[in-house]
Amino acid sequence: MTQTIKLAVIPGDGIGKEVVPEGLKALEAALEGSGVALETTAFDLGAERWHRTGETITDAELEEIKAHDAILLGAVGDPSVPSGVLERGLLLRLRFALDHYVNLRPSKYYPGVATPLANPGDIDFVVVREGTEGLYCGNGGAVRVGTPHEIATEVSVNTAYGVERVVRYAFETAQSRPARHLTLVHKHNVLVNAGHLWRRTVEAVGAEYPEVKVDYSHVDAATIYLVTDPGRFDVIVTDNLFGDILTDEAGAITGGIGLSASGNLNPAGEFPSMFEPVHGSAPDIAGQGKADPVATISAVAMLLNHLGMAQAAARVQAAVDADMAARAVAEAAGAPLVRTTSEIGDAITAALR
Amino acid sequence: MTQTIKLAVIPGDGIGKEVVPEGLKALEAALEGSGVALETTAFDLGAERWHRTGETITDAELEEIKAHDAILLGAVGDPSVPSGVLERGLLLRLRFALDHYVNLRPSKYYPGVATPLANPGDIDFVVVREGTEGLYCGNGGAVRVGTPHEIATEVSVNTAYGVERVVRYAFETAQSRPARHLTLVHKHNVLVNAGHLWRRTVEAVGAEYPEVKVDYSHVDAATIYLVTDPGRFDVIVTDNLFGDILTDEAGAITGGIGLSASGNLNPAGEFPSMFEPVHGSAPDIAGQGKADPVATISAVAMLLNHLGMAQAAARVQAAVDADMAARAVAEAAGAPLVRTTSEIGDAITAALR
Ligand SMILES: CC(C)[C@H](C(=O)O)[C@@H](O)C(=O)O
Ligand SMILES: CC(C)[C@H](C(=O)O)[C@@H](O)C(=O)O
Repeated sequence: MTQTIKLAVIPGDGIGKEVVPEGLKALEAALEGSGVALETTAFDLGAERWHRTGETITDAELEEIKAHDAILLGAVGDPSVPSGVLERGLLLRLRFALDHYVNLRPSKYYPGVATPLANPGDIDFVVVREGTEGLYCGNGGAVRVGTPHEIATEVSVNTAYGVERVVRYAFETAQSRPARHLTLVHKHNVLVNAGHLWRRTVEAVGAEYPEVKVDYSHVDAATIYLVTDPGRFDVIVTDNLFGDILTDEAGAITGGIGLSASGNLNPAGEFPSMFEPVHGSAPDIAGQGKADPVATISAVAMLLNHLGMAQAAARVQAAVDADMAARAVAEAAGAPLVRTTSEIGDAITAALR
Repeated sequence: MTQTIKLAVIPGDGIGKEVVPEGLKALEAALEGSGVALETTAFDLGAERWHRTGETITDAELEEIKAHDAILLGAVGDPSVPSGVLERGLLLRLRFALDHYVNLRPSKYYPGVATPLANPGDIDFVVVREGTEGLYCGNGGAVRVGTPHEIATEVSVNTAYGVERVVRYAFETAQSRPARHLTLVHKHNVLVNAGHLWRRTVEAVGAEYPEVKVDYSHVDAATIYLVTDPGRFDVIVTDNLFGDILTDEAGAITGGIGLSASGNLNPAGEFPSMFEPVHGSAPDIAGQGKADPVATISAVAMLLNHLGMAQAAARVQAAVDADMAARAVAEAAGAPLVRTTSEIGDAITAALR
């Protein structure tokens, strides 16, 4: 455990700038009396920065970020920026440069939250999404662009090295949970090359985790189960694109990606890991104090956990859970809580203390 | 309109063999008095055939199938066949050899059907899935297989030619529907090469259909909307893999892929188009008369439509809709209908006459 957490903070755009201060409030409260100090460096990155300077992130900034213990990201993006610029130039740049090979996305249903499902049941699973390979590696191209003979390709690259390490992480995660159940999601009946690499790797690594029950689902079937029987999942391990798709659907069934947090992890600790709410910058509600900071505060719990402060992490998550329970009670009583972003942050922070 | 429909019939495995006869019953009834005769040729293809002969489909069979006007497929597959063998060797072989570049998958919610959604609302959209390109073209490979240095790739191939023709079909479809609304689903913020080809193509072709309202959704967001607001969709056009994923989720929200039909179309008519229920061979319930033939009978309606017999198609679909309505009434009265596969087929066929 470090005695000072050097935290890189990227508020970003829109509501990112509103939820990050709430996350920091909760983080400071969680560290009080722990003997661990917090040192933050803010990085001005995102759509506004790009409009101003034409830069997504400079090499110097990337090096500076690398000197931190972890990163807290709000949200970046704005409709005024052409598609792909910030995604490839900033978000994916960070994931790849910092070797964030595990993208950890827990999905939990809080009773009382409005969900589109008639019977959500007990939803509590975590998706372990690969973060540095697959179709996200920017390996593809186009020829004869704009002509009737254009050909555009996208290449999914999967390596034994890359698949093995994320699968191992997923088994460790499954092993540490009561249900000890891992589901590989892929499409190996069509994507035979990549699919069989994933399947063989799960089989091989699984031999070291005899207590973990393993099964498999094609990605198309998994989108069905998420709607009809989400309780069947405990830990899902999958590739970069399938993970992107499944975690958004998972957000929807649990009542909105507004509540979900995500960790972009470099478990080996060679580079800082990055924690963020799954939601975007939501320019339509930005600047009005309407954003819910709960996903960012959950991201802070993941961050603490990653830095080895499991107890502080549990306290933050418990404060979030208590706030969600209070909402459910108010909702059930017909008097839903109406609070601004910082009021919610204050309430959770107060509960933490 | 042909005076004789030469129909290739592939019952396949499991419940495929039970639902296909019901589809044929309905087809014969629909043709009665129309002056159009039906001539069927059965093809013994699928898991059983593969176990017996080691063949998925021979070149001679493929040529013979080409000489037909259309194909009715039940379902193929069995857990005893290694993953990929029948998918690549038979199903995708047919789609590619017969240039089925449009995979048409309507999604409709029938009131009364059990759905996982609390408020399904009015779901009535159609997915136009590309069928001959993308990640399905088998363009990929692996080196150093089984070693720690294995690399497995899958290549998504997208051509202006291939994208333009399916996008055009989607606009024609949207133009013919009351809502006239087309949604492109892709992931162009990450898959920039393929994504921008799709986007530019939709823009270019869209200029010829000024009455069609066009919008766009990333595939991850689309999986959210399918759960939270499926009524927003009218016609979705998307690539092969995204279409595979979205149509399964669409099946789930409308009450199960057991009710959905699919057309693998060669709109130009150079090769026979293929119609099928979306469900699989369901070995667990095979041979017990438990399968619901309604998806196959809907596939027959699509088949008639494709062959230019719009009136007969509408009659078949109306008979299906009436049966679904009767189920809802019985269900609401607390006395759900309990019928075998052929009893359902008989009821729908009787209604048709
Ligand atoms: C913004 C985009 C690049 C990103 C992704 O596709 O990974 C987002 O959808 C996510 O899931 O974090
Ligand atoms: C069986 C498989 C090859 C097929 C596909 O992926 O297209 C199926 O899932 C479908 O949707 O028709």
